[in-house]
Order: sequence, then C-alpha cells, then structure tokens
Amino acid sequence: MAPALLSTFATEIIIPVCSVIGIVFSLLQWLLVSRVKLTPDRNGPPASNNKNGYDDYLIEEEEGVNDHNVVVKCAEIQNAISEGATSFLFTEYQYVGIFMVVFAILIFLFLGSVEGFSTKSQKCTYDATMMCKPALATAAFSTIAFLLGAITSIISGFLGMKIATYANARTTLEARKGVGKAFVTAFRSGAVMGFLLAANGLLVLYIAINLFKLYYGDDWEGLFEAITGYGLGGSSMALFGRVGGGIYTKAADVGADLVGKVERNIPEDDPRNPAVIADNVGDNVGDIAGMGSDLFGSYAESSCAALVVASISSFGIEHNFTAMCYPLLVSSVGIIVCLITTLFATDFFEIKVVDEIQSALKKQLIISTVLMTVGIAIVSFIGLPTSFTIFNFGVQKVVYNWQLFLCVSVGLWAGLIIGFVTEYYTSNAYNPVQDVADSCRTGAATNVIFGLALGYKSVIIPIFAIAISIFVSFSFAAMYGIAVAALGMLSTIATGLAIDAYGPISDNAGGIAEMAGMSHRIRERTDALDAAGNTTAAIGKGFAIGSAALVSLALFGAFVSRAGIQTVDVLTPKVFIGLIVGAMLPYWFSAMTMKSVGSAALKMVEEVRRQFNTIPGLMEGLAKPDYTTCVKISTDASIKEMIPPGALVMLTPLIVGTFFGVETLSGVLAGALVSGVQVAISASNTGGAWDNAKKYIEAGASEHARTLGPKGSEPHKAAVIGDTIGDPLKDTSGPSLNILIKLMAVESLVFAPFFAVHGGLLFKL
Amino acid sequence: MAPALLSTFATEIIIPVCSVIGIVFSLLQWLLVSRVKLTPDRNGPPASNNKNGYDDYLIEEEEGVNDHNVVVKCAEIQNAISEGATSFLFTEYQYVGIFMVVFAILIFLFLGSVEGFSTKSQKCTYDATMMCKPALATAAFSTIAFLLGAITSIISGFLGMKIATYANARTTLEARKGVGKAFVTAFRSGAVMGFLLAANGLLVLYIAINLFKLYYGDDWEGLFEAITGYGLGGSSMALFGRVGGGIYTKAADVGADLVGKVERNIPEDDPRNPAVIADNVGDNVGDIAGMGSDLFGSYAESSCAALVVASISSFGIEHNFTAMCYPLLVSSVGIIVCLITTLFATDFFEIKVVDEIQSALKKQLIISTVLMTVGIAIVSFIGLPTSFTIFNFGVQKVVYNWQLFLCVSVGLWAGLIIGFVTEYYTSNAYNPVQDVADSCRTGAATNVIFGLALGYKSVIIPIFAIAISIFVSFSFAAMYGIAVAALGMLSTIATGLAIDAYGPISDNAGGIAEMAGMSHRIRERTDALDAAGNTTAAIGKGFAIGSAALVSLALFGAFVSRAGIQTVDVLTPKVFIGLIVGAMLPYWFSAMTMKSVGSAALKMVEEVRRQFNTIPGLMEGLAKPDYTTCVKISTDASIKEMIPPGALVMLTPLIVGTFFGVETLSGVLAGALVSGVQVAISASNTGGAWDNAKKYIEAGASEHARTLGPKGSEPHKAAVIGDTIGDPLKDTSGPSLNILIKLMAVESLVFAPFFAVHGGLLFKL
Repeated sequence: MAPALLSTFATEIIIPVCSVIGIVFSLLQWLLVSRVKLTPDRNGPPASNNKNGYDDYLIEEEEGVNDHNVVVKCAEIQNAISEGATSFLFTEYQYVGIFMVVFAILIFLFLGSVEGFSTKSQKCTYDATMMCKPALATAAFSTIAFLLGAITSIISGFLGMKIATYANARTTLEARKGVGKAFVTAFRSGAVMGFLLAANGLLVLYIAINLFKLYYGDDWEGLFEAITGYGLGGSSMALFGRVGGGIYTKAADVGADLVGKVERNIPEDDPRNPAVIADNVGDNVGDIAGMGSDLFGSYAESSCAALVVASISSFGIEHNFTAMCYPLLVSSVGIIVCLITTLFATDFFEIKVVDEIQSALKKQLIISTVLMTVGIAIVSFIGLPTSFTIFNFGVQKVVYNWQLFLCVSVGLWAGLIIGFVTEYYTSNAYNPVQDVADSCRTGAATNVIFGLALGYKSVIIPIFAIAISIFVSFSFAAMYGIAVAALGMLSTIATGLAIDAYGPISDNAGGIAEMAGMSHRIRERTDALDAAGNTTAAIGKGFAIGSAALVSLALFGAFVSRAGIQTVDVLTPKVFIGLIVGAMLPYWFSAMTMKSVGSAALKMVEEVRRQFNTIPGLMEGLAKPDYTTCVKISTDASIKEMIPPGALVMLTPLIVGTFFGVETLSGVLAGALVSGVQVAISASNTGGAWDNAKKYIEAGASEHARTLGPKGSEPHKAAVIGDTIGDPLKDTSGPSLNILIKLMAVESLVFAPFFAVHGGLLFKL
Repeated sequence: MAPALLSTFATEIIIPVCSVIGIVFSLLQWLLVSRVKLTPDRNGPPASNNKNGYDDYLIEEEEGVNDHNVVVKCAEIQNAISEGATSFLFTEYQYVGIFMVVFAILIFLFLGSVEGFSTKSQKCTYDATMMCKPALATAAFSTIAFLLGAITSIISGFLGMKIATYANARTTLEARKGVGKAFVTAFRSGAVMGFLLAANGLLVLYIAINLFKLYYGDDWEGLFEAITGYGLGGSSMALFGRVGGGIYTKAADVGADLVGKVERNIPEDDPRNPAVIADNVGDNVGDIAGMGSDLFGSYAESSCAALVVASISSFGIEHNFTAMCYPLLVSSVGIIVCLITTLFATDFFEIKVVDEIQSALKKQLIISTVLMTVGIAIVSFIGLPTSFTIFNFGVQKVVYNWQLFLCVSVGLWAGLIIGFVTEYYTSNAYNPVQDVADSCRTGAATNVIFGLALGYKSVIIPIFAIAISIFVSFSFAAMYGIAVAALGMLSTIATGLAIDAYGPISDNAGGIAEMAGMSHRIRERTDALDAAGNTTAAIGKGFAIGSAALVSLALFGAFVSRAGIQTVDVLTPKVFIGLIVGAMLPYWFSAMTMKSVGSAALKMVEEVRRQFNTIPGLMEGLAKPDYTTCVKISTDASIKEMIPPGALVMLTPLIVGTFFGVETLSGVLAGALVSGVQVAISASNTGGAWDNAKKYIEAGASEHARTLGPKGSEPHKAAVIGDTIGDPLKDTSGPSLNILIKLMAVESLVFAPFFAVHGGLLFKL
C-alpha cells in the first residue's frame, strides 16, 4: 500500500485548524446577531441616527422601529423563554446525569468482565499474531469516551438553545425592517449553532483520539473500539434530549392549541394563553437542543463507525494515519464548504420578498452539495492511498480511492435527494400539501386520511435513495463504504443544522411578535419565515433519518464483525424472531411517546382551561396568566415520560444480547432499522404536511387557498386538527426513532465484546 | 421410517368425508336461517299462531312483529343490497377474469421456459438420482392449479356475499323477537359461510391432488410444486377482492358519513342518505366477499406451503401418503371441531341479554381452540410416523410426531392470544378504547393521537406471540414446522369466519332496521350485535394477519429451498436493499389504497351533496334519493383504483426476481413481512378502536360514557371523525396488507424455478 499524498503532519494540522475556523466563524456570526440590540437606545428616541443594528434600509422601516416599549416587551418575553428553557434543561440534565453515571459504570463492568478484569495484554481480535491492550483498558477508555460524548452532546444542545433564545427576539425586531433582515438574523443564528456543533464535535473527537493514542500506541483496534463510546455517549444524550424535549414541546403546543385556537378562538401565541410561554420554550428545548444533540450523535456515530471499521482494515494494520483519519478529513473539509455556502445566504444574495426564502434555503442545500463533491474528491485523492484493503467479514477486499470518493458522494447526493423529496411533500408550494389542504373541505377526517397517505407515499423515493447508496457504497467498500456514505450525507451538517435551527427560531420570533402585540404585517413576515422553517425542519429530519439509516447499518456491520458472526441469516429462527421483534420496536416506542404527549397535553389543557375559568379578566387581556404553572406541567411530564421510552431503547440491546445472543440482536437491529426508517420518514412528513396545509389556508396566497380560508372557516378548523395530530408525529415520535435505530446499533457495538463472550445465556442453558 | 398408524385408505376416506360433513352442516345452517320468512304471512295477521320462524319466545315479542309493511320494506332493501353487491362482483370478476387469463398465460410461459419448453423428463431438484416430470408439465399443472384456486376463491367470496345478503334482513326481523334470536340468525349465517368455505377449499384441494397424482405418479416433488399454483390463484383473487371491495365499502361509508352524519346531522343508515345502499352493499363485497377470499387464500397457501415442504421431506421420498396429507388431516379435524363449537353458540347456550354477545363470541374462540388441541393431538399421533426426517435448507433433520403436535398447537394458541389481545384493544369493554373515547373530550386531534398510539401499542403482544410460534415451530421442524403452525392458526377457520362474517351481517341488519323505519329498540339490539361484530371483525383481521405472517414465512422458506439459496444474509448488499425496500412496500401500498378511498369518498360526497341540494323534499323524507348513482360511483372508483395497488403487489416479485435475482427477492419478502405485519395490525386495531369508541359514547351504557355523549355532543363529533379516519385503515389498507405479504411470497415460490434459472438479469450483465 502506497502512503497517501497528504503527510501525517499535514493531517494533524488540517483537522484542528478546520475545527477552529468553524468555531471562529460561528463566533463571528454570533457577533453579527448580537449587533441587533435588545435594550432600548439610551439616548432617547433618535431623530436622525438609527442604532438598531443597521444603518441602511431605513426606507423599509415600519411603524414601531423606535418604539421602546416593543423592544422592552420583546426582551422580557425572550427572557421568560430563555429562563424556562434553561431551567428545563437543567432539570433534564440532573436526571440524565444520574443515568450517565449509572450507564458509565455499567459499560465499565460489562466490558471489564470480558477478560475477567485482567490487566494483562491479550491477543488482538482481528490479527491473532499481534498483542493488544487488555480488555480492562478498553473498558476504561470506552467509559471515558462515553462520558466525553455525552458531555459534548449536552453542551451542543445547551449552547444551541442559548443561541436560539438569544436570537428569537432579535429576529422579531429585525422583521420590522423587512423580511430580508429577519431572515439573515434567523439564519445567522442557525449558523452559529451549526458551526459550533460541527466544529466542536470534530475537535473533541480529534483530541480524544490523540490523547487515547498516547496510551494505545500501535493498538489501533483497541483505540477505535474505545473511541466508539463517544458515539454511544452522544446518542444516548440525544435520545433523552429528543424524547424529553419532544414531549415538552408538543404537550405545550397541543395543549395551547386545543384550548386557545379551538375552544377560545384566540390566535396562536396569544399572550392571554397561559401555555404560550411553555410552547415557545418547547421549540427551543425540543427542536433546537434535542435536534442539536441528535445530529451531533449521528455525526459522532458515523465517524466512530468509519473509524472502527477502518481500524481493522489495512489502514490500521499499516498505521497510515492520514488514511485512517479520512473520515475526519471529510468532516473538516465539510466545515469549510459550509462556511462558503453560508455566505451565499447571508452576504452574496439578499432576500427582498417572502417568496425568495424557500428558494434561498434550497440553494443552500444545492450549493453545499456541489461544493462538497469537489471537496470530497480532493480529500479522497490526496488523503487516501490509490488502493488499500478493507476487512469485509473475514475477507480482505481491495478498494481504490476513486471508489471511496464515489461512496462518500453517493451518500451526500442521496441526502440531497431526500431533502428535495421531503421539500416536495411538505412545502405548500407543491401539489401534495395543496391536495391535503383541499381535502379539508370535507372535514378533518379526509384531511387526516390524505395526510397519512401522503406520509406513506413520501417514503418511497427516500428509501430507494438509501437503498442505492447502500448498494453502491457496500459494493465498493463493504461496511466502510456505508460508514463513509453516512458521513458524506452528514458532511454538510453545519449547513443542515443552520437551516434546521432557523425554523424554530423563526417560529419563536413569530410568537414573540404576537405576544409583544406587534403589527399584523410583522407577524406575516415571521409567518413566512416560519412556513419555510417547517419545510426545512422536515428536510432536516429527512437528513437525520437518512443518515441514521446508513450510520446504523455501518454500526451494525461493525458490530457483526466485532461479535464474530459470519452471516446474519434471516432463515435461522434466532435471527428471524429478532427481525420481526425489532421491526415492532418503533411501534412500541411511538406508542409510548405519542401517548405521553397526549396525556401531558390533556393535563395542560385542564390547567389552561382552569386559568381561563378562574382568573378574572384573562380573556379580556386585563389580567396576566400564570405561565409558570404551565411550564412546570410540561417540565414534569416530559421528565417523567421520557424514562420508559428511554429505557426501552437502552435496555433492549442489553437484554437481547445478554439473554438471546448476538444473532438475535443482529436481527433486532436489522428489523428496527428497516421498519423504523419508514415510520420515522412518514411520521415526520405527514406532520410537516399538515402544518403547512394549515399555513397554506391561513396565508391565502392563491385563488385556491382563498376558497378554503379564511382563518376560522370550517376547512381551516379541519386543518388545525390535522396540524395538532401532526405535532407529536413530527416532533416527538418521528425524529426520536432515528435515535432509536442508531443508538441500539452503537450500544450493541460498544457491548459487542461482552456479548461475544458472555451473551446468549438463554440458549446456553 | 415407520408408517403412520392411519392407513392410506383411511386417509383417502377421512378427508373427503369431513369436507362433505362441513358442507352438509353449512347447508343445514342455511336451512335454519331460511326459516325466517321474508314474505309477509299470506293468512293475514295471525291472532293465535305465530309463523315468524319460531313458535317460542312470544312473550318477548315487540311492536311490529306482524307488521307486514315492515317485512315488505326489509325484503325490498335486502333486494337492493343484494342486487348492488351482485352487480359489483360481476363487474369486478370481469376485470379480474382478464387478469386471471393473462396471468395464467404468464405462469405457463415463465415456468415452461425453465427447461426451454422441453417435454423430456429431468433430474429431480432435491434428489438428483431420480427422474422427475418435465418443467413443461409443472408449468401446465401450475397454471391449472392457479385457475382452480382463483375460481374457488371467487366462488367462496361470491357465495359468502350471497349468504350475507340473504341473512341480513332476516337478522333484522329476528331482532324484533329479542337479541338472542337475532344473534343466532346472524351467527348461523356466518357459519354457513365459514363451513362452506373451509370445506370447499379442502375438498377442491384434495380432489386436485388426487387428479394431478394420476399424471405425476411418484414424482411428489413436481406434484406439490404444481399444487402451489392453487395458493397463488386463491390469494391473487383475494387481493382484488380485498382491495376492490375495501375501496368500495369505505368510499361509500366515508362518503355517506361525511355528508349524512357530519353535515346534515342525520343518523347512520338513514334512508334519505343517497349513499346508504352503497354503504350496505360495501359491507357485503368488502368485509364478506373480500374477507372470505382472503382467508380462503391464507388457508390454501398454508396448506400448499406445508405440502410442498413435506414433499421434499422423507414423507415424499418414502411415499407415506397419510403423513404427506397431515396438513389436510389437520384441516379435516378442524371442520369437525368447529362444527361442535358452533353448537355451543347456537344450541347449547342461549343469549338473553346484550352483554352476553361478546362473551358468547369469545367462548367460541376458546372452545374451538381447546377442542382443536385435542384434535391435533389425535391427528399427530395417528397420522404421523413416530419420527421422520425433514429437509432443512440442504440438511436433513429428524422430527418426532409430538414435536409436530407442538408446532401446530403453538400456532393455534398464538392465534387465540392474538384474538384476545385484539379484543382487549378494540372492545369498548376495556380501558384502551375507553381511554380513546375519553380523549374525545378535548376534540378530534387527541382522539386521533390516542387512537394511533393504541394501534401501535396493540402490536407488541401479537408480535411476541408470532415470534414465539416461529421460534418453537422452526426449532422443532424447520420450515415445515412453521407451515403447520400457520395451519394450526387457521385450523379453526370455519369458526373464525363465522364470527367474522357475523359482524357485517349485523351491521347490515342495523342498516336495514334504520332504513325500514323500525323502532329505536330494535336498532339498539342490532347496534349491540354490531359493536360485538366490530370486535370480532378486528379479531378476524388479527387472525388473518397472524396467519399471513406464518404462512408467508413458510412460503418464503419453501421459495428459498426451491430457488437453491443457502443463506439469506442481511449483511450482503443485495439482500439488505431488498429488505429495506420490502419494508417500504406496505407503506407504498397503504398510500395507494388510502388515497383511493379518500378520492372515491370525495366523489361520493359531491354526489350526495348534489342530491341533497337538487332533489326537492329529500331531506324531509318526501322524495327518494337516487341510490343507483352512488352505487355506480363506488363500483367505478373501486374497479379503477384497485389496479395500481394490485399491480404493485403482483409485479414486484416478478420484476425483482427477474432483474435483481433471488437474493434480493428474499430480502424483499422478509422486509415486507416484518414491516407489513406491524402496519396491518396497528391499522386494523386503531380503526376498530375508533369505531367502538364512537359506539361506546353512543350507547352510553356507563356513567363515564354518558358524560361524553349523547349523540351530537362535541366529544361524539370528535369520535365520529376518528371512526371515519379508521374506516380505510381497518377495512381497506390494513387487511389488504396481509395479502400483500403472502401473495408476494406464494408468487415468488411459484416462479422460483424460473428465477433460479433466468433471474437476476441486471447483476448478470
């Protein structure tokens, strides 16, 4: 094997440098956002100079730009949201912290027991002629990596939430100056999160590898086995983030809507609604913190999967550091590509009218994909030797660098296709959502039937895209190919997260505008931002699910290699029962989470009703509602309710592996994967479509839409029902499923050494 | 191998005798039903003698027993329903007939081409030392078997429909005398269908085997390969029956409800509603004819799967006819067991109050299962040699007769468990449905969220039951074990069908009572029958799905053996992409069928609205609506819309097998199986639960229920929306999915010789 063109030294430099560039860029974006002032100008109402962040575009100025009261009110609301979110996350982290410690101990004990806690070196798993570090060391380092991943994930989610709550009121204020300004503020804030998360994730992983290497030295197998804990840590935190946050946000949202919109006939985000702050807090803890942790988890896992497979390929055997770091190099280039892409949205072009928002976001996807293809080509040709061998379930396979380029690219482009299909099915600019809106004519029932059918249908093309990526990347480079294809799909994660985080920020901005009593025009602008945000949120979920599918398959492959299984034959009963039970898990999990949202929402409804009935003058806007109690209901419910689904996901691999063994566990993983992907995509697209069908009717932008409206008409009421049903589907159960899939896979991989030695108790008896 | 205790001669006698007993019993039941006269008594209103079928129970008589007008009206309505159903089925059969001919030609050409249409004998597939009949003969006989299966399926569905439409008005009339009488009439009618179908299916299969044997002689491998066509024919007709009938019934039902109940606020089945006849016709063509064909298909397929696997085991090699016929013997005993069981419902016990209906039906399940366990034991110990060998993917496996007894029993009992779980989740006597009803307090959205969660949750135990059956039966007797486990689940098919058919008959009876303007009290009785019927329908679907899962796995195993694949390894890309695409198919299929129902319902809504708006005096009951146009809309829509989903199911195995080869096809089958089962169970239980949640509120039988009602209250309206959404889920997409699963499997098996030789074109290039 010839060495890669890129020297080890250059690799050691490039990765941290790119990470740091990403972090600096992120801070720069934050600085730009912070220039929108949330404190009223101290010099009194200025006559000639305008200090609200920008000096241009005064022509577009609207009523109230210099109205101090509005600014003060926005700042107040923002504070309330930020406090609520912070307090929830701290509560959540307390519980999650306990879990983290317990699970860390579990990892150490399980993995340590593999060789009976012996401190002696042992023969390597894949190359019996060599000696590797003891299993006890791997246990210890896996535990450390797990904690590292968990903490990084928590920090990612927390920072994301902080940034989002910092940006939402600023977006509202900017909306006074025009839709373009508001868009840039929201998007920049999204970018802060996107870059911080991507760069931070890469940097921590890189540092961990280098530190672990000090101990492991030449034992690459052990090193990357231990590093896998990083993925497990990231994803297990993401699970609680997604589920807890998802239940929080939807309990509040559904509860607020059911009483506010349906019973009391007051608009969304009306400050009289006691659940309104909880609803806005929910967007930040669920859609921002949860999603941030989730995508960080995917990223960490796909990197770990690629690294662990690579470590047992000839990269690892011949210690070619640059080639070994190929996955990290791809991510490094991704940060630079996304940086350039972001400039297209914030600096190179400018949005002047509402219609341009959607296409600006779409361009982000296309530009980043095209540029990234070039980036991958460069990395593949300078970072990899022309040919090398890959470990493929016991067989060596020769792979060329151009093949690996194709593997990563096919993942990247499959991601784009999934993004576009998702957009087609969830944006109200196209037929599917318009058909759903049209079906509201005959009431909520047809709306639901059409919406469910739409979600089911939207699965078809993404599945083919995933299937083709799998086939191509597997044919070229076996499981390593699939791992890097997943990484390809996630290589533009910074941009993906930016446009994804942009959605809830816009949603909150609209909420703040409503609550601060700003004019209808401003609300229209934030609504337009929000409608585009719904679609991007769905696209983001599409990416998350697609990449989760590839990642879990790669992890699954790594698990099978590590567990020493030669084939996973569907025709053996052990595997088949695993397969069918695995395919059932997404349903079990969804039942739990949806029921949780439903019950929590019912509690919220009762509290909101109670307040409307007992607080005099509330409906008239004379008295203030008790927001805190609603925040507390959401917090308590989500903390309590996230435990059973969390336990289901975390315990299944442990129980199956320990009692039924690795074959059945393989079946469970494969079943959960192929079934979960479908449930997740259909749930999130159905929900997105319902939400935008409602917005389509509300906006009344076309002749057709106007025949269905206005707000409060029968079709609109039917659309609101659909939207409410979609809430838990698209924001709780759907997006949590991709964590279910990959978390079970990464957990199995981490515990594989244990299962391989001690697993399958039931069949052994 | 020792011969079985039962002689060949005895076997040759027992099977046809049991079939004939079944047919005779069925005719007897029909005779009893026909004693309820639908023509008014010619002697004028009798004073002392009562000729309405029974001479007892006159104390219970109600108003209108002797009202001639009511009888005439009922007869009229029954005729209209019967005509509509007959005309639809004839139209459907015309199209299906074309398909049948085309597909028969396809089978002949594909299978004939395996050996290039050579008429020479060839080496056997499984035992190369022996000579078998030419592939051309198998092609010809497979085609004949296919046509035979298709025709038997059509006849089964058609007769079922005829009986149901014969019985519905009679049930209404009997309801005047008390709920017990009505129950017996409806149940007897169901039994007519159940026994006719079970006995007929068995008899035709038995005769076909004996006739084919005249040609095949000692070539058992070829004989039973050809016989598999019978299963394919049965199931392909079932597909069109289920899908076409399902779209028909739900287009009419949803359309009628949306305008009638929601917009015009008139009761269900009100004669003023123009879609009301179409709705009642739908129950007969969808729930009766479709379901009949479906279960017949399952039965035929599981028999064929067992026979084909048996033919390559030592039964076939040593020509042990009795052992070979074990699957048929099990079914024969099943008929006798069901006969005894039926007497418990119709003769041994008597229903006096409404509450006893549900438990009477439940007892049917328990009694038949307990008796059948004894029956299986007898058959297993006298019909099988003590030990014998089974062909298990190239390896011979020794099996004992007690093991086979356990295989069949585990399937049987798993069926009972599935039945009970389904009952628990769909009957309004238990918490889950009551929770769903309670969630209607906060509107349709929470109702839908809770209903979907309920459906997802209801999947858990059935999947474990199926998984355990698979594990046990596979461990004991490989794929043969699974095939007989499926047969075990279906062995009480006559009872299953009877209680299943009972549902739509009661539903129709209620409709007729309403349309004939009978008193509220009678409607209450038929409603009680109907509510129990909803649960039994869900139970029937549970059985159908559970058995479909086992059947398809058995067929899948037979396919893999026949196609000469050694392992179906999930870790090969060919298999994995098949798996994930296969898991997507149920979604694609559901999207098609649900959208079809939605679109057809919209057309129906427009027509019904048009009639209400343009026919003067319709709303006041002064003018008659134009029922025929509505019947035509349903007919046209269902014929047109059944083609794309039908094509999806029929073409997928052919395309995948021909272009991608048998490995990918195996993946597709496994994927569709494990994913489809979940979608099917959850869809049918969600729908059943919504339906009964609505009925729970309407009946107002408990304190809790009364707080939600009465009819027309807000919670009730929310419940009606749920019910409407559930319609296509539980009666169109859900139950069609089990056909998707098993049809693709049996089709793959029939075409396996072709795929093995000519398949996988794309990878060969």
